[in-house]
Amino acid sequence: MSAAAATLPPALAPTSGVFAQGAHHFPVRVYFEDTDAGGVVYHANYLRFMERARSDMLRLLGISQRGALDDGAGVYAVSHLDIAFRAPAKLDDELVVISRMTGVGGATVSIAQQVKRGQTLLAEASVTVAFLSAQGRPRRQPREWVALFTSITSGEPSPQ
Amino acid sequence: MSAAAATLPPALAPTSGVFAQGAHHFPVRVYFEDTDAGGVVYHANYLRFMERARSDMLRLLGISQRGALDDGAGVYAVSHLDIAFRAPAKLDDELVVISRMTGVGGATVSIAQQVKRGQTLLAEASVTVAFLSAQGRPRRQPREWVALFTSITSGEPSPQ
Amino acid sequence: MSAAAATLPPALAPTSGVFAQGAHHFPVRVYFEDTDAGGVVYHANYLRFMERARSDMLRLLGISQRGALDDGAGVYAVSHLDIAFRAPAKLDDELVVISRMTGVGGATVSIAQQVKRGQTLLAEASVTVAFLSAQGRPRRQPREWVALFTSITSGEPSPQ
Amino acid sequence: MSAAAATLPPALAPTSGVFAQGAHHFPVRVYFEDTDAGGVVYHANYLRFMERARSDMLRLLGISQRGALDDGAGVYAVSHLDIAFRAPAKLDDELVVISRMTGVGGATVSIAQQVKRGQTLLAEASVTVAFLSAQGRPRRQPREWVALFTSITSGEPSPQ
Repeated sequence: MSAAAATLPPALAPTSGVFAQGAHHFPVRVYFEDTDAGGVVYHANYLRFMERARSDMLRLLGISQRGALDDGAGVYAVSHLDIAFRAPAKLDDELVVISRMTGVGGATVSIAQQVKRGQTLLAEASVTVAFLSAQGRPRRQPREWVALFTSITSGEPSPQ
Repeated sequence: MSAAAATLPPALAPTSGVFAQGAHHFPVRVYFEDTDAGGVVYHANYLRFMERARSDMLRLLGISQRGALDDGAGVYAVSHLDIAFRAPAKLDDELVVISRMTGVGGATVSIAQQVKRGQTLLAEASVTVAFLSAQGRPRRQPREWVALFTSITSGEPSPQ
Repeated sequence: MSAAAATLPPALAPTSGVFAQGAHHFPVRVYFEDTDAGGVVYHANYLRFMERARSDMLRLLGISQRGALDDGAGVYAVSHLDIAFRAPAKLDDELVVISRMTGVGGATVSIAQQVKRGQTLLAEASVTVAFLSAQGRPRRQPREWVALFTSITSGEPSPQ
Repeated sequence: MSAAAATLPPALAPTSGVFAQGAHHFPVRVYFEDTDAGGVVYHANYLRFMERARSDMLRLLGISQRGALDDGAGVYAVSHLDIAFRAPAKLDDELVVISRMTGVGGATVSIAQQVKRGQTLLAEASVTVAFLSAQGRPRRQPREWVALFTSITSGEPSPQ
């Protein structure tokens, strides 16, 4: 955690969500920027919400994507995504993105994600991310990250 | 075509792409807004490119989404999307989005879309859009639109 | 506050920031979506951060923009914005947007906003928003809102 | 111009706009992604339109931002922006961004930009961009670029 975060009062530190029941839960509020002239959240913006959630899931696990980017270790990129839109979200809605790791390969991770408003399912997706070198080639993920991911997918106690 | 378009010199009218060989072809250039700190186009932005292409495919067919929105006829919303990311796009790249209608139902249309840079396939997607009422309920598409879509999917001469 | 919010555990309710020392403080974390190929936050995205902060400042004051939109009362639109970019923000940075109302007119509000990372000023802006009718015409703000705004700008005790 | 561009039929090459009467003119169409629940273009998206126009103005002058980024020469970043929003744009609108260089310094360029729909002025802005090194420090612009900019601001014949 950065020095800046350490000095922020709790209400001013951005949330990273929480792990509960083997899944990561992450809150999102809908702002004007997220909506379109149809009066609902623009479909591509669900992918932004889900990426925020995946990034903060890694953050809670102690993985720094910024660090990996800066030192040239590599970067995660989405290689496949399948998403069904079930119901629309609107301005000011409070959503939760629920993310569950479903598979860990040498260079890839599979994640099932849902976007819900209360008990209403708005969107659900299967996402595969691949770890890439700075040159854009698939690259083996750090061994300790794989161990972390495996512990989560196998249902071991979550880190929080 | 709108009155505004009619008065613009050709170089200043935004392109709507062209139909060729049963598919709609639409050019996109990559700007800073489309990229992320990984140095490549952010994955969700391919969905923006593909939506621009679908909108202009409808426009070339003579369908006004703005008109349908304004008069309360309805609006198309993505109900399902499956996308594979094959290779990254970078700043200044000139891309083409190729869209092909693959199925027409009462309230839905299926479209296969590819994003290419020259001969290189960067992303390919299957997209289903549903026609919705102003209240967000699935609604039968205008009969004349279905006829247009069917003529395209059946390989009849394209409108251009 | 919506029913959904009432049922979320605190860690899962999106923050609306806090009022302190006559200003609204709102946390933002930088995700991949916010950055560009230059490796820093894309300049237009500061406007998104600042709009989120303004929206949540209104929310904390008890004003529902969604309500005003749905019942046709009106909507706030930015009419003028002056922004100086002092230093870049990067992926994973934890920022705070500080917003201070500086003037209240019949149909407009002026707000001074800063984006900071710790003690470092990244951007500062003067923003004027105008209240518009559903037809897009300037419209007198609700009297009770003006009273709220005036109490804040005059340095009276903040609502939290 | 890239090899890809050379092989595209004219209708499939993205436009870079044109120089006319000492200013750069660039067309933009409004898509769903650009609008918000207020039914108009989201204010921050005008900055995206204006950045596309500035990028293509440089492109027409023969300046490659991608090249400068890749070889570490530097990158332009907005340092100051003042924008007035005069009238809203809506879905499907065809806009033109008119850009005029108004000043050239050692490390900065000033540009006046307007966004119009036909004869209607929607937004006008004064923008200052600074040339930055890969480390984010202001850096002298390449001498030949300054010469190009100066020739434009002084009203000499435009390059097209």
